[in-house]
Amino acid sequence: MTTRIPIVENILSANDRMAERNRLLLDQASVYSINIMASPGAGKTSLILKTLESLRGRLKLGVVEGDLATSIDAEKAAAAGLPAVQINTGGECHLDATMLADALPALPLSDIDLVLVENVGNLICPANFQIGTHLNVLIASIPEGDDKPYKYPGMYRGVQVLIINKIDLLPYVPFHMDYFQRGVEILNPGVVMFAVSSKTGEGMDAWTDWLVAQVESNR
Amino acid sequence: MTTRIPIVENILSANDRMAERNRLLLDQASVYSINIMASPGAGKTSLILKTLESLRGRLKLGVVEGDLATSIDAEKAAAAGLPAVQINTGGECHLDATMLADALPALPLSDIDLVLVENVGNLICPANFQIGTHLNVLIASIPEGDDKPYKYPGMYRGVQVLIINKIDLLPYVPFHMDYFQRGVEILNPGVVMFAVSSKTGEGMDAWTDWLVAQVESNR
Repeated sequence: MTTRIPIVENILSANDRMAERNRLLLDQASVYSINIMASPGAGKTSLILKTLESLRGRLKLGVVEGDLATSIDAEKAAAAGLPAVQINTGGECHLDATMLADALPALPLSDIDLVLVENVGNLICPANFQIGTHLNVLIASIPEGDDKPYKYPGMYRGVQVLIINKIDLLPYVPFHMDYFQRGVEILNPGVVMFAVSSKTGEGMDAWTDWLVAQVESNR
Repeated sequence: MTTRIPIVENILSANDRMAERNRLLLDQASVYSINIMASPGAGKTSLILKTLESLRGRLKLGVVEGDLATSIDAEKAAAAGLPAVQINTGGECHLDATMLADALPALPLSDIDLVLVENVGNLICPANFQIGTHLNVLIASIPEGDDKPYKYPGMYRGVQVLIINKIDLLPYVPFHMDYFQRGVEILNPGVVMFAVSSKTGEGMDAWTDWLVAQVESNR
């Protein structure tokens, strides 16, 4: 067992070095970037599509979609007329920095202000792999339940932004916002939070305006 | 790279050997067992609690709860008066057969007909690790969306039972049952399916009656 620890450290630091290279590449091209994580079905793709719609005309956008298989998500982004790259992880439960390094050259970075990276749907593994983006964003969703911060602390601890999606379902499911937010506060005090419904559009302006301000302040 | 494949095979076959030992132990004690998998928030714990409630008096039950951290779920089962063991994986994204082997002796197997194992909330990693139970059960949920079979094929392929939960939310979310079931059929033709709401109780009898029949036919 003693040999396993250094091997894990070595893999992680190789990933971290590659993440730094991604960040350098993005910064040199003046591209801001966010890594969007969530459990399966929290609404990553729909929220990204609504975000792209709202940012159109304000920022030049690019998309990187991560999935185990299929290119359903990248096709949706491409159908919206945006440069999109699909990463198929071939079963891996998360994106890593090397996968993003392979994907970035396929985007016209000199003509992009903001890249949205959609990670694999998973509340565990992606939290262990920095990929080099400027922000880590977690999308939680109301029907997942209010105990998720307590059960997936690594993910809730590792993000700078938390978007609570599907608030239109609050009347139909048991979800105590106080209990949820207490868990978040313990793990990640001061995390930037937005409550939205990508279905009704509620709360989306606050999120996208904030994101535009981040991109502009990074220039 | 060539050295990685034999190592992975070796880990998996060690897990499979341990899974066989778990099965033997369960069979010797005449205990039937199911491994319940789902993404975070699909309703594993509530469905298990409703199932336990419905089976009370018909079967003697035990519960094994798998989580990254906390013992919230085992406490819920214990509060229902049932023998329950919590496995904290310490960050691992799935249960494996050794974890179950460590947990089983903590249950009074000679006084149990059916053990329900709740795996870690994850649609990817648990599919790669047999733990030795008689059935693998996947809980999908309506608000996750109808594209999940296409995006998480490994999980949908590897189960004998698929429970579609939260059907009470069908009026409030976009979910095309035809599209969903077409994906399931491609990956796993003939999988046993139940559509339920653990909130309203709809469909629960069909699931629990079927489960009792499985336990009885295994005696």
